[in-house]
Amino acid sequence: MNEVDVETIEDVELQDPVLVEGLPGVGHVGKLAAEHLLDELDGTLVRRVYSDQFPPQVEVGDDGVAELTCAEFHAIETVGRDLLILSGDHQAQSNEGHYELTDTFLDVAEEFGVTEVYALGGVPTGELIEEYDVLGAASDEDVVERLTDAGVEFRESEPAGGIVGVSGLLLGLGGRRGHEAACLMGQTSGYLVDPKSAQAVLEILQEVLSFEVDFGSLEERADEMEEVIGKIQEMEQQQNVPSDDDLRYIG
Amino acid sequence: MNEVDVETIEDVELQDPVLVEGLPGVGHVGKLAAEHLLDELDGTLVRRVYSDQFPPQVEVGDDGVAELTCAEFHAIETVGRDLLILSGDHQAQSNEGHYELTDTFLDVAEEFGVTEVYALGGVPTGELIEEYDVLGAASDEDVVERLTDAGVEFRESEPAGGIVGVSGLLLGLGGRRGHEAACLMGQTSGYLVDPKSAQAVLEILQEVLSFEVDFGSLEERADEMEEVIGKIQEMEQQQNVPSDDDLRYIG
Amino acid sequence: MNEVDVETIEDVELQDPVLVEGLPGVGHVGKLAAEHLLDELDGTLVRRVYSDQFPPQVEVGDDGVAELTCAEFHAIETVGRDLLILSGDHQAQSNEGHYELTDTFLDVAEEFGVTEVYALGGVPTGELIEEYDVLGAASDEDVVERLTDAGVEFRESEPAGGIVGVSGLLLGLGGRRGHEAACLMGQTSGYLVDPKSAQAVLEILQEVLSFEVDFGSLEERADEMEEVIGKIQEMEQQQNVPSDDDLRYIG
Amino acid sequence: MNEVDVETIEDVELQDPVLVEGLPGVGHVGKLAAEHLLDELDGTLVRRVYSDQFPPQVEVGDDGVAELTCAEFHAIETVGRDLLILSGDHQAQSNEGHYELTDTFLDVAEEFGVTEVYALGGVPTGELIEEYDVLGAASDEDVVERLTDAGVEFRESEPAGGIVGVSGLLLGLGGRRGHEAACLMGQTSGYLVDPKSAQAVLEILQEVLSFEVDFGSLEERADEMEEVIGKIQEMEQQQNVPSDDDLRYIG
Repeated sequence: MNEVDVETIEDVELQDPVLVEGLPGVGHVGKLAAEHLLDELDGTLVRRVYSDQFPPQVEVGDDGVAELTCAEFHAIETVGRDLLILSGDHQAQSNEGHYELTDTFLDVAEEFGVTEVYALGGVPTGELIEEYDVLGAASDEDVVERLTDAGVEFRESEPAGGIVGVSGLLLGLGGRRGHEAACLMGQTSGYLVDPKSAQAVLEILQEVLSFEVDFGSLEERADEMEEVIGKIQEMEQQQNVPSDDDLRYIG
Repeated sequence: MNEVDVETIEDVELQDPVLVEGLPGVGHVGKLAAEHLLDELDGTLVRRVYSDQFPPQVEVGDDGVAELTCAEFHAIETVGRDLLILSGDHQAQSNEGHYELTDTFLDVAEEFGVTEVYALGGVPTGELIEEYDVLGAASDEDVVERLTDAGVEFRESEPAGGIVGVSGLLLGLGGRRGHEAACLMGQTSGYLVDPKSAQAVLEILQEVLSFEVDFGSLEERADEMEEVIGKIQEMEQQQNVPSDDDLRYIG
Repeated sequence: MNEVDVETIEDVELQDPVLVEGLPGVGHVGKLAAEHLLDELDGTLVRRVYSDQFPPQVEVGDDGVAELTCAEFHAIETVGRDLLILSGDHQAQSNEGHYELTDTFLDVAEEFGVTEVYALGGVPTGELIEEYDVLGAASDEDVVERLTDAGVEFRESEPAGGIVGVSGLLLGLGGRRGHEAACLMGQTSGYLVDPKSAQAVLEILQEVLSFEVDFGSLEERADEMEEVIGKIQEMEQQQNVPSDDDLRYIG
Repeated sequence: MNEVDVETIEDVELQDPVLVEGLPGVGHVGKLAAEHLLDELDGTLVRRVYSDQFPPQVEVGDDGVAELTCAEFHAIETVGRDLLILSGDHQAQSNEGHYELTDTFLDVAEEFGVTEVYALGGVPTGELIEEYDVLGAASDEDVVERLTDAGVEFRESEPAGGIVGVSGLLLGLGGRRGHEAACLMGQTSGYLVDPKSAQAVLEILQEVLSFEVDFGSLEERADEMEEVIGKIQEMEQQQNVPSDDDLRYIG
């Protein structure tokens, strides 16, 4: 295997598609959002990307068949813009790996004619959320303006530590290649997998790209999580207020 | 030295051999199994693989002569299928190293005509085992079926975190190269070196590959371990139940 | 992106300029000093250096526009020597990265005709400072003599552990390339961002390079820090002497 | 700078020289031994080896002049065999670095006609030592025999964990190149810098290579350390037996 190996599964013609990335991160917001699109819309697996920057690992399916860790691109045609969805179970495991893989992801996207990039993720607030705002960062001021119109919030010096990983680099390296790139970051406590935050991010994306997706299954998962949160809050009241450390951080 | 250096020790003609890997891992199950085959059957050292991905280390033999850390291939002719055994004292020390070494191991195996790969290892249960099941994962459904017939268990979403290291990659990269590949993972507490688990794995392998091996010496080692376990359990009852952390995890 | 990418923003002719480096380090002394020069003097951004040795990260500006992590060179013409200022938010993240980036920084500086290098930084004393001495280390004895005349102190076996990171390598690799190179290290507690130490370093640099800069804004920041220190000392007296560990080390 | 840079300082003709390595390690035994030879015998600095595998660091001399971290080769002509001494303040910082640097060290040694290699070091016993035995490991049985005659002890499965770092690799890679290579490891508590252990190692080396060196200054350093040890033992008796952890391990 080469350091990075792009496997062509199928070739599909897309009309002016946008790249939508949802790899694991804070609250698994981006991953939930991308996987929801793949569950609800009719997508075609077009590329797999293998890399020695991923963990040396196979995942075992329910049939006992193992698949080497990879990232996948699916093509989806929608009533609005066509989508190229980037999803997977892992981020790169080193700094150089993040740069190398993001460059590869952008190369693949450009093959499909992509010039517009949306990296989906979460931004941790450290407390349970009432209203799920979506924060943004973008490659240039035109994109900021366009996204502001769609309801994205741009706040001074947020997120405080910058944006790290593939999402940050799709914005940074994508911008340097001349693409219109943006991060859409759903607010999330950061403590739990957060389907509500994923829905908030997708509602913005729907608006911006004029496609339509049903949120029924995502709302069900959100209800399940609500129950978990409810139980935790009950326990907090009964016992003597456990610290935040008792909740497991999903990073 | 190059990054990876394959030293030819001897050239041997094998008839349709299978690769059997037993490098260190959980409960040292794979390593015990591979070394038992080398102890009991008449093997020939055919290749040594040196790599800067191994620890920078020599092992000193009883005669005071030091050998640079490496992995070794032995060829064994059996009444059933011929075997190419991969053993050694170390795994790679980095992600990239795991990928690079596994590619090299597959290259060497292909030189000998291998198209079928068995990676042996353990799967930790976290508690002492009564009955030693062997779990499986495979590169395709035909192999799953064949191994199920031989008594291997394939369980939904087990092992939970996937299979990591050389064993996982022999399955993942081997599968991508078109080989029939499988992991055979003996259940083991994970706390102690586990000869019983190694025997359970080898009994399956015997069945699948139609060779025969005596288990006398492995049973002796198992009896020794039983005594150790007995003493630990005695101590647990006398003292006030030490936590699992008091048992050293052999990973 | 290549492993290191030097982006030309503007070309400027400088007369026998000196390189002045102020990347993050102990007490942020070097960074504060470099940024003060950029704030007070009229500089031109001439180069950006991107590298996969920097964190995979974008910083988000107040306008919501994100910039890929990089180091920047600004050219400044002064009444004394012309300056080429190297600043940024990050050091490299690995040993090899430090070497590779420092080589690139020296290559860029040589393009502008630099033969003289000043790496600015702090040296931690572990206690609050009354008088801010500036310690030095240099590539040869002539530079030691010249800087001694300007008030820099050279003390036997200080700093004890050598000088690490880009500052150390600019001296070491710069010296090997035949440049006159020096580190100017302001004494600082190491516990807090230290504008007074930065001013002490800049006063030496002014003297050596015959330029002039106003210290008003740096003194204001120093007054703010004094207030913080005053409050900490008050707390120390009221409570029962917290250990140094209670003060956050800025490294 | 390249990844590894060998700087020629002077060219010297040596008669059938042996390489003697003393880089930092357990008890600083090897480093003390090599530096003692450089202090007592008339050596010439012949090569410096720079590498991005060393820490990104300069050491500052008493004159304020900084030197980039490197390893040095000195040539020494003795009444017995000529010596090529490899010394320095650092080991490589990664596995690959250890391999790469050791290969370079052997390349340099071969330029001078070296076919025999002695890696000096310490082996930790975990307790204060009465009699300083020197343990050995070698590339082949002839060397084992020769060193046994000189008083080196070869003990079954010692050192238990193998020999790591440059010393181990000089033996392992040196042996693979066909050199006669050996590690001479002075027993040492491992808790303190140990001049007595260094002397024990050098006495063996003297015997094997027929050179002569005065031990006066090393004995003085040993007496100083004895005083330190005496004080520690006094404290142990007065106070209630501190654990070994109170003694700083010099690794």
